[in-house]
Amino acid sequence: MRYNLYPMFSFVQKLHSAARRNGSMLCIGLDPDPKLMPEMPVATFLCEIVEATKDLVCAYKPNLAFYEALGIDGWKALQQVIKVIPKDVVTIGDGKRGDIGNTSAAYAKAVFEVWGFDAATVAPYMGSDSVQPFIDYTDRGVLVLCRTSNKGGADFQDLVVGGRPLFEQVALKAKAWNLKGNIGLVTGTTQPVELKRVRELCPDMPLLLPGIGAQGGDLIASVRGGLDANGGGIIVNSSRETLYAAKGKDFAQASRKVAERLRGDIQRAAGR
Amino acid sequence: MRYNLYPMFSFVQKLHSAARRNGSMLCIGLDPDPKLMPEMPVATFLCEIVEATKDLVCAYKPNLAFYEALGIDGWKALQQVIKVIPKDVVTIGDGKRGDIGNTSAAYAKAVFEVWGFDAATVAPYMGSDSVQPFIDYTDRGVLVLCRTSNKGGADFQDLVVGGRPLFEQVALKAKAWNLKGNIGLVTGTTQPVELKRVRELCPDMPLLLPGIGAQGGDLIASVRGGLDANGGGIIVNSSRETLYAAKGKDFAQASRKVAERLRGDIQRAAGR
Repeated sequence: MRYNLYPMFSFVQKLHSAARRNGSMLCIGLDPDPKLMPEMPVATFLCEIVEATKDLVCAYKPNLAFYEALGIDGWKALQQVIKVIPKDVVTIGDGKRGDIGNTSAAYAKAVFEVWGFDAATVAPYMGSDSVQPFIDYTDRGVLVLCRTSNKGGADFQDLVVGGRPLFEQVALKAKAWNLKGNIGLVTGTTQPVELKRVRELCPDMPLLLPGIGAQGGDLIASVRGGLDANGGGIIVNSSRETLYAAKGKDFAQASRKVAERLRGDIQRAAGR
Repeated sequence: MRYNLYPMFSFVQKLHSAARRNGSMLCIGLDPDPKLMPEMPVATFLCEIVEATKDLVCAYKPNLAFYEALGIDGWKALQQVIKVIPKDVVTIGDGKRGDIGNTSAAYAKAVFEVWGFDAATVAPYMGSDSVQPFIDYTDRGVLVLCRTSNKGGADFQDLVVGGRPLFEQVALKAKAWNLKGNIGLVTGTTQPVELKRVRELCPDMPLLLPGIGAQGGDLIASVRGGLDANGGGIIVNSSRETLYAAKGKDFAQASRKVAERLRGDIQRAAGR
């Protein structure tokens, strides 16, 4: 019997096959904001977006904040959206969770068992035992915040500690925690130099790249700096730019057009 | 007209008057875990705990993880629990949230508007613009993670940067952000020396002190080190020890007994 370091159907394998099948490293952030949406139920809106784009992406990333802000109706909408995402496309529950061990175990249960996400984003500030309950789901992915795309990301992440900025220390810790091969890192496209540095430190870990579009990230430099040795390993997220491409009846087709363009831009930047 | 630095009914004022009225700096963590609970609906259990202890505490702190782990039924239980907490006792929505600006705004809306909490816990890793949307609710409290009670808290929080451990840098940043007087810090009782240091750096900010009981925190040293110049300003949290004092029919009275003892221990440690 062959020794399996990684579980049979790991997050990394699922991501790789979704990216190959759809020829895409694009992820669409499903972040419902009633102020930006056409006038219709949130679930209907999101399900139509998924229907119109599901052959163009490797992943969908619902950010849980936008569902929480809608109360219990928001969670009901999330249930409906998750149902319509094809089983072979990766789902990322973006909650940036983290707490003491038994509490993080409850968060991991929520994101992986209650909602059934393939991956979760987690915050590193509380350290190893706050991340471990997520890692223990060895068939799921754990995406640790490293260098985030927002302006305030510099406040602590760029502080130099032990000769390196904190975000590099986080990258190295996450690499050390990665005994089951199911950890990745979140590195914003607004900081392409830092992103490239993270890739150098962690050549094999998947990177989630937010920040293109509304946040002004550099798509081309980020894709080039973020690719792994096999020309993959990145998940480029677009939320507002794709989701709110139009407010009229043609909103889903408008989103599809943006997604097609972004998919192509990413492939070209990757030299494909 | 007098210039008001702080809003009329601020979080700090509400905390102070709840602590004075009930002669208590104790907070009970309402963290439902069906495995530890008597066999009954979650909401019934929590409502009975509140009913039995509401004259003994300054605050209740539902940790959102435990509700998320129960799916939509969990959120429905939270709705019921919040309803029975007396209006003059502080409620803390413990979610340790934090994300880019527009997403943190959605989290702040959820915790302050959808659920109506008086205060929220937030994670500092993503920096100022991830915390600001919470601070903007000037009548609510924002409790920033500083030195957490878990073992992994040392991984990053104790790293020395610019001549100080990171948790001190976080304390100083939070102090600088505190223009509206509505920010506090989370400092674990498992690290009483660090807790005392945080109080020295931030003499006027309320401190949430988790970690007594199951986590083995030092109650007496933490209370003594955490008090402000007026002999207050601390919220000492107990979750499992109080909540799961007994599993039989007398569970609520058993919780009350633990809460009474802890309230007394805290008052004595504070020299009252």
